[in-house]
Amino acid sequence: MTATRLDVLGFGNAIVDVIARAEEDFLLAHGMRKGGMALVDEARAIEIYRAMGPGIEISGGSAANTTVGVAALGGRAGFVGKVREDELGAIFGHDIRAAGASFETPAAADGPETARCLIVVTPDGERTMNTFLGAAQDLSPADVDEATVAAAAVTYLEGYLWDPPAAKQAFLKAAAIAHGAGREVALTLSDAFCVDRFRAEFLDLVRSGTVDLLFANETELKALYETADFDDALVQLRRDARRAVVTRSEKGALAIAGEHTAEVGAEPVERVVDTTGAGDLFAAGYLYGHARGFDPAVSLRLGAVCAAEIISHLGARPETDLRALAAKAGLSL
Amino acid sequence: MTATRLDVLGFGNAIVDVIARAEEDFLLAHGMRKGGMALVDEARAIEIYRAMGPGIEISGGSAANTTVGVAALGGRAGFVGKVREDELGAIFGHDIRAAGASFETPAAADGPETARCLIVVTPDGERTMNTFLGAAQDLSPADVDEATVAAAAVTYLEGYLWDPPAAKQAFLKAAAIAHGAGREVALTLSDAFCVDRFRAEFLDLVRSGTVDLLFANETELKALYETADFDDALVQLRRDARRAVVTRSEKGALAIAGEHTAEVGAEPVERVVDTTGAGDLFAAGYLYGHARGFDPAVSLRLGAVCAAEIISHLGARPETDLRALAAKAGLSL
Repeated sequence: MTATRLDVLGFGNAIVDVIARAEEDFLLAHGMRKGGMALVDEARAIEIYRAMGPGIEISGGSAANTTVGVAALGGRAGFVGKVREDELGAIFGHDIRAAGASFETPAAADGPETARCLIVVTPDGERTMNTFLGAAQDLSPADVDEATVAAAAVTYLEGYLWDPPAAKQAFLKAAAIAHGAGREVALTLSDAFCVDRFRAEFLDLVRSGTVDLLFANETELKALYETADFDDALVQLRRDARRAVVTRSEKGALAIAGEHTAEVGAEPVERVVDTTGAGDLFAAGYLYGHARGFDPAVSLRLGAVCAAEIISHLGARPETDLRALAAKAGLSL
Repeated sequence: MTATRLDVLGFGNAIVDVIARAEEDFLLAHGMRKGGMALVDEARAIEIYRAMGPGIEISGGSAANTTVGVAALGGRAGFVGKVREDELGAIFGHDIRAAGASFETPAAADGPETARCLIVVTPDGERTMNTFLGAAQDLSPADVDEATVAAAAVTYLEGYLWDPPAAKQAFLKAAAIAHGAGREVALTLSDAFCVDRFRAEFLDLVRSGTVDLLFANETELKALYETADFDDALVQLRRDARRAVVTRSEKGALAIAGEHTAEVGAEPVERVVDTTGAGDLFAAGYLYGHARGFDPAVSLRLGAVCAAEIISHLGARPETDLRALAAKAGLSL
């Protein structure tokens, strides 16, 4: 096996988040499904942005957030995703590298602008996302570097990548390289509506063993198995997945492998400011632990600590020293 | 006199802030003067940005922040400043309009990119700014609309505008129009180093009556009169300025007009997170009150409430409903 140079290599849409607060009726007035991620074209993105209040811009993207979280914990992390050579692309590249992750994917010289996600945060802290994929959809198999994938303990893929066809091919190429090199492949289901779009394919990825470790939240898991019964979904998941991590917001999270189960409660949070990135940072904590050979229960705990940090402020990139938080929670990295 | 259509029309550099936290030694290592604003060229901006940690982007610009504050208080506010037709320019335009201010200055179709200010926030909450003026320096007299200036109760100019030569001409044109229409002109000294660059000219603006109302903080005032003695500076200010507002951080603020003085203490703040925009928002509160005919003591109080809000979070744009805060402080707008 190649020497391990990265704990986690994330593949995802390279996105800058534009975050604004709004009241509940804003979602209704603009036909948004609360808590979801909707793909929007440029015209709709412009229309939504016009209606939104003043915003702040913070680099985002689900797998990119996870990658940054792993780096913040002291892990060796890399990211693969597509921006364009423009101002937001430069911001995205700066932020992920400044966080300590490697990011070598060449920016597109032309074509659509760097992706942005228009995020509306309601007073309860819930986020509703409208993503204009822009340059991100041009991620292609040519952007997958074989040596880099082969040297990563875990290749982590976001389900959102299933939307752009070329990115899906990049995703499959990376998974094949990882397994060819004796590495692991992890996938997050990303979003219940994303699951609705690609249910059969996601199930096939899990059942065929293309994915070794599946991340899902409760809603996504129910969507995957088209059931309202969590326990029923879990029974099916145990049968289909080699390993899986299921997050349940304030009900905590569990890691399963066959009949084995590890559980953790949610970390207390003073006030939920913005849930953006909760799942991404949970995955970061778990993946760091997993790559370093921690017990699933410890990895879950680390995930919970990271998720609690991210929901206590706006944006999906850590503001606090995650290593210090982990130490405070009694976890030695 | 034309009917008043605006309470405050702000003229300033149209800037997007890029904010990152850093330790004190970062300032030293990069030769930055703590608490100051340094103008940087593109090469230096790139060098600093490379060294900075992950950032967040929030629209800024001193007079623009003040304009947004006036609008947030329910005032009629407009802004004049130059961006380029690029992504950061679109963000700047969106944010100021979404805040309720008018912004009609045409964006430059080419030339340098939209201005950005690289802001380093140290653990004590102090901000140190590095401004790449970019498109902002191309604000010119042609961008000054006579009817708009004539219909604004107060034309508010930032001292920073003295840096770019064409902007200085725009500044002087606006002041002349305002006085021709029987309106008032206010100026902020902006920054002690800015005062060092233009001391003679600023003093002339004040002594000649080109400026009716001067805003300064204690450091800027001492720089203006080249004295370490605040009381001495104040004596000179009373002689030179028709009216002035002097802010003194935690020591509060005072408004003077000849021998008349109104004073206010600083509002209590739980934790100073980032001082960026403290002076800008103080000016917003004061100008709103001034334009609406409030007593100087009440206007000062309103300024203190707005300043306290802005230093309790990252960025120089209000995150909380300023009208509600004013009401809570017993001020009826």
